[in-house]
Amino acid sequence: MSVSLWDELLYNYQKRLVEHYKNPCVEYSLIIHNHGDRAGASIAHPHSQIMASAIIPSAIERELENSQKYFKRNDRCVFCDLVNDELKTKERLIFENEHFLATTAYAARFPFEVWVMPKSHQSDFVQMDKDARIQLGQIMGRVFASLDQKLKDPDYNFYIHTAPPRQGDPSAYYHWHIEILPRLTDMGGYELGTADFIDVVSPEKAALFLKN
Amino acid sequence: MSVSLWDELLYNYQKRLVEHYKNPCVEYSLIIHNHGDRAGASIAHPHSQIMASAIIPSAIERELENSQKYFKRNDRCVFCDLVNDELKTKERLIFENEHFLATTAYAARFPFEVWVMPKSHQSDFVQMDKDARIQLGQIMGRVFASLDQKLKDPDYNFYIHTAPPRQGDPSAYYHWHIEILPRLTDMGGYELGTADFIDVVSPEKAALFLKN
Repeated sequence: MSVSLWDELLYNYQKRLVEHYKNPCVEYSLIIHNHGDRAGASIAHPHSQIMASAIIPSAIERELENSQKYFKRNDRCVFCDLVNDELKTKERLIFENEHFLATTAYAARFPFEVWVMPKSHQSDFVQMDKDARIQLGQIMGRVFASLDQKLKDPDYNFYIHTAPPRQGDPSAYYHWHIEILPRLTDMGGYELGTADFIDVVSPEKAALFLKN
Repeated sequence: MSVSLWDELLYNYQKRLVEHYKNPCVEYSLIIHNHGDRAGASIAHPHSQIMASAIIPSAIERELENSQKYFKRNDRCVFCDLVNDELKTKERLIFENEHFLATTAYAARFPFEVWVMPKSHQSDFVQMDKDARIQLGQIMGRVFASLDQKLKDPDYNFYIHTAPPRQGDPSAYYHWHIEILPRLTDMGGYELGTADFIDVVSPEKAALFLKN
């Protein structure tokens, strides 16, 4: 997908979120993108879905709660600290440009799990401007070209985690980001029974493999 | 599988747990049983695995924490209340005998998710005696015969949630049980992005389907 197509897609994500947020019942709206059977996709081609809910989803609630705790203790955003650490060590860094970085996830659940984060603090995906959208499009294009080439067109999900529109004011401590999950392995009994994950490829090895 | 084979299997589960618990590093030991590709099974035939860890798994930690909270508030075990409620309403009840019941899960994550619980309060799976094991074998046999027949040999996982051997004393508020997850649907972007589940079959309808 070209950078201008990515820009168009990301801009449409933003517009739909703004539209959803006008409904006072909407406490959260999740954008997901699915590709392939193993990713639970219900449509043959890669596609996006947006799902509004009257509750804050559990995963978002936990991220909000814990990033707030971290902020209270350290007076810094935990995602900003993560960004700076990844840029310093470069152990999990795959791609970067002026505004964004793509790394394998520090605590990856799945092999080759990739996170894309804005370098500057921003809690709300909707606030990203056109300049940043184009840079995000470049990074997303490079990540998916690499996944496609190195992992041979894997099934995947990605979704956007952003600040909820109404509840609290997480602008100081929350930091929107995109999580990309190639679905090479299935969740087995251990993962379902424990809610913990066995990841058979270290994030550091996965980053080396994807960037070279 | 005959009741005596179930008894033998369950007895072996107990023996292995006791063996694991002798190692002071073991904080938890999870017994799982897998069948089929979609269940993440690494072996062609249905098989059990037991995995010891030096930490209490996240799912167990949450169950312990919340069942303790419930006990403090109500002076009753939350699982005992669940058992009594399921026996009273019978809306999700599939099978029962003197010592056990099998119901579809009240807050099921997957279609046809089944929980098997002892009727009398018991926190530790290892403490189950032979009489109870035989009754559990009967119930497990009936559940799997029904799943096999009604859902046509579905892939599945089951696992045992029991009190950890060392940490705290959850004997008053924790209640061991078995969770059986037919793997008819995959986890998609929504489930992975939110840690919440969309279940397309109501537990009440699933119970009717399995018991008739």
